[in-house]
Amino acid sequence: MNEFYQKDIISIKEFDKEQLEKIFVSTDKIMKLQPIERREISKGKTLAYLFYEPSTRTRLSFDSAIALIGGNSLGISDISSSSTQKGESLADTVKIMSIYSDVLVLRHPLDGSSRFAAEVSSKPVINAGSGTEEHPTQAIQDLFTIRKEKKKIDGLKIGIVGDLKYGRTVYSLLYGLGNYDVTVYLISPESLRIRSDSVYEIKKRLSFTESTDIEEYIDDLDVLYVTRIQKERFPDEEEYLKVKGSYIVGLDLLQQMKNDSIILHPLPRLDEVSIDIDSTKNAKYFEQAEYGKYTRATLLGLILNKDGF
Amino acid sequence: MNEFYQKDIISIKEFDKEQLEKIFVSTDKIMKLQPIERREISKGKTLAYLFYEPSTRTRLSFDSAIALIGGNSLGISDISSSSTQKGESLADTVKIMSIYSDVLVLRHPLDGSSRFAAEVSSKPVINAGSGTEEHPTQAIQDLFTIRKEKKKIDGLKIGIVGDLKYGRTVYSLLYGLGNYDVTVYLISPESLRIRSDSVYEIKKRLSFTESTDIEEYIDDLDVLYVTRIQKERFPDEEEYLKVKGSYIVGLDLLQQMKNDSIILHPLPRLDEVSIDIDSTKNAKYFEQAEYGKYTRATLLGLILNKDGF
Amino acid sequence: MNEFYQKDIISIKEFDKEQLEKIFVSTDKIMKLQPIERREISKGKTLAYLFYEPSTRTRLSFDSAIALIGGNSLGISDISSSSTQKGESLADTVKIMSIYSDVLVLRHPLDGSSRFAAEVSSKPVINAGSGTEEHPTQAIQDLFTIRKEKKKIDGLKIGIVGDLKYGRTVYSLLYGLGNYDVTVYLISPESLRIRSDSVYEIKKRLSFTESTDIEEYIDDLDVLYVTRIQKERFPDEEEYLKVKGSYIVGLDLLQQMKNDSIILHPLPRLDEVSIDIDSTKNAKYFEQAEYGKYTRATLLGLILNKDGF
Repeated sequence: MNEFYQKDIISIKEFDKEQLEKIFVSTDKIMKLQPIERREISKGKTLAYLFYEPSTRTRLSFDSAIALIGGNSLGISDISSSSTQKGESLADTVKIMSIYSDVLVLRHPLDGSSRFAAEVSSKPVINAGSGTEEHPTQAIQDLFTIRKEKKKIDGLKIGIVGDLKYGRTVYSLLYGLGNYDVTVYLISPESLRIRSDSVYEIKKRLSFTESTDIEEYIDDLDVLYVTRIQKERFPDEEEYLKVKGSYIVGLDLLQQMKNDSIILHPLPRLDEVSIDIDSTKNAKYFEQAEYGKYTRATLLGLILNKDGF
Repeated sequence: MNEFYQKDIISIKEFDKEQLEKIFVSTDKIMKLQPIERREISKGKTLAYLFYEPSTRTRLSFDSAIALIGGNSLGISDISSSSTQKGESLADTVKIMSIYSDVLVLRHPLDGSSRFAAEVSSKPVINAGSGTEEHPTQAIQDLFTIRKEKKKIDGLKIGIVGDLKYGRTVYSLLYGLGNYDVTVYLISPESLRIRSDSVYEIKKRLSFTESTDIEEYIDDLDVLYVTRIQKERFPDEEEYLKVKGSYIVGLDLLQQMKNDSIILHPLPRLDEVSIDIDSTKNAKYFEQAEYGKYTRATLLGLILNKDGF
Repeated sequence: MNEFYQKDIISIKEFDKEQLEKIFVSTDKIMKLQPIERREISKGKTLAYLFYEPSTRTRLSFDSAIALIGGNSLGISDISSSSTQKGESLADTVKIMSIYSDVLVLRHPLDGSSRFAAEVSSKPVINAGSGTEEHPTQAIQDLFTIRKEKKKIDGLKIGIVGDLKYGRTVYSLLYGLGNYDVTVYLISPESLRIRSDSVYEIKKRLSFTESTDIEEYIDDLDVLYVTRIQKERFPDEEEYLKVKGSYIVGLDLLQQMKNDSIILHPLPRLDEVSIDIDSTKNAKYFEQAEYGKYTRATLLGLILNKDGF
């Protein structure tokens, strides 16, 4: 039996290096299959999504992933128009959705929501983003992208730039990178540094260097992971504009980077990565989105099939 | 040819005991089939839903039902964002939706809407809730649940508690129960008694005893069917709170009930059934939801296949 | 290889008579296939829709078309609830959606949006309505309907009545008709005449006669194509009511028409075609909607299959 069969995917912290590698090898495999072969993997299985926060991108990634392996999806993409408006509890909604499906994909603003859902659900639950830190399928997608494009993760120098305070993507990636021997630079304005209450937990897993200057370590990086800086985080618009301007990744910055470095972004982007970058060989954020489809299809395929695929 | 082939499902009043039993036997059968066998039943058939009132629960139940038997669904779950906003008539919308599908599922606030839709539609129409009284697939689901969990319907003592005035579920269930030899207790606050204009019609089918006291007949019941009491029905909040409190089904009430009694609820629930009840063997409302998936799949399968399945 | 394989469908102007005939012949063919044969055409292929303007009708027509040939659909039907709200560019959204699918269906208020999307998309793009003039799949549907119901297009006398100023359907139909030897009458109130900036372009393709009087040429027409007159186009409601009243197609007008004339409408309609007309043999607008499903399925099948079907 494959170890992911019927497993809940709640936190990236629960994955060790060996497990991640198994998922990556399966993703390599699924990418090489013919469409007709892929569709046999979870033929006729139903995924239910239950989104308490809107996220078109993540939902569509799961929609396309389950379709890739022959299944279908149904669910609630906007909870505000559903029965839960009438005051139904998360537990009841999860129980019902798990009756309607073979696997449940949950997005919820609260920490712990997915673990709670997994406890009451009769079907496996995948956390599609919860609380401040957890977005395990995004982290797996990001790690797979690095491994695929750089042929390894160990030994790499990885810069993560932008809003490191909010945005669960960064935290999940850091916890995931904790499985590897990497050098990490966290680059952000002072006010958007990684949250102090998470630093202890992260430092147990990897060491990192912080900087407010994107150019300080730029020529050393193998991977530059860019995230959005959101205007609404700043009380003062002028402060925002100043900060934003100094973290835009353009051709000038790229020229300071190693020739074979790669630039990633969880998307959607505004202008923190200049569109000039898109046509360079370093830009890998659209590949990253595509790998997200395949890593999610792989996870679903492993969860839904006793003997894997 | 099976008698439900291409048949409209408009009112529970149109089903006699023999027809209901045929559906129940087919549901027993569909539940025993392998997934791969089920998906052959309506492979590639398309269900269109057309909801003039939002009902996530009912829509998803149909979505999962058609997926179970190999079909797919499309449609309008929120009419306010559709062409009908531009003033299109129900007749035109129904005609178009029936062009796009093999079977049409309609929810509409007005009595008679489904029958009208069936007249103009080129495909069979299933009423997924209309007006004040009709929700035939819910009634079939409820009757199947009773039969499945109590091994029979005839001879049972059935209490229905909560808001009996509004809520079409109660009326459909009563009309459905009219086919059986049952003893019915209707328990509600004075202001939420069954509507006087329906009493005549219901009494033609079955006799019932009314009470405002949930404890009066509680030790005699085989089935307790609980419905929500909605705050907005009361002009005075204090009145609401008083009433609500006296109809909450908790462990103390359960202890007064027969050991093998069952508790049903059409869901979603607020707190009219305490979550303490969930883990008792008497709680059958989640099973009820699951049977809803199978009874709907059965109806769809019978409607879409000349020779049944 | 079939010439439509992987082709973008951006403008009806790009189709010549021979190409249109190929699509029509394929549509004749797809209509004759058994359901099980149709579903093999694009089995497991995924259509992504991306709608910047709501259009339930067009979206459902594509949903049903892709289901007919064995594929599935996903996407964004209401962009206001999606990531693009966060300011994502059309280019990025299109790139991502094309990763998630095999073919992309775009609706957008701006002229040129579809051509732009096709340039950045890695998958073929179908324009499902853009700007003021382009709705190529509607035009193909309309032309197919005329050919199917009148057995030819060349030689016909075709009246188009209603709001000719706004409404891209009319423009696309005129450009499409430019491939044929037809006599065209454009009938509208003075204020809703065809836009003067389009007249030059249209006159290069066909000649037409304008009139404000629907009865002037009515007895000569083989086809009467009716469009809605929208209240919001008129600053003065009284003016609107007067105009509207004089363009209603009812039985009295039908009696002035040739016995074998046909009446078309892109739907939804309000009361510009009286429902009395529906039951006459001349009314072909519901057939037109059905042909829309088949012409779209045909286009999708040709785009997605190297050797056609």
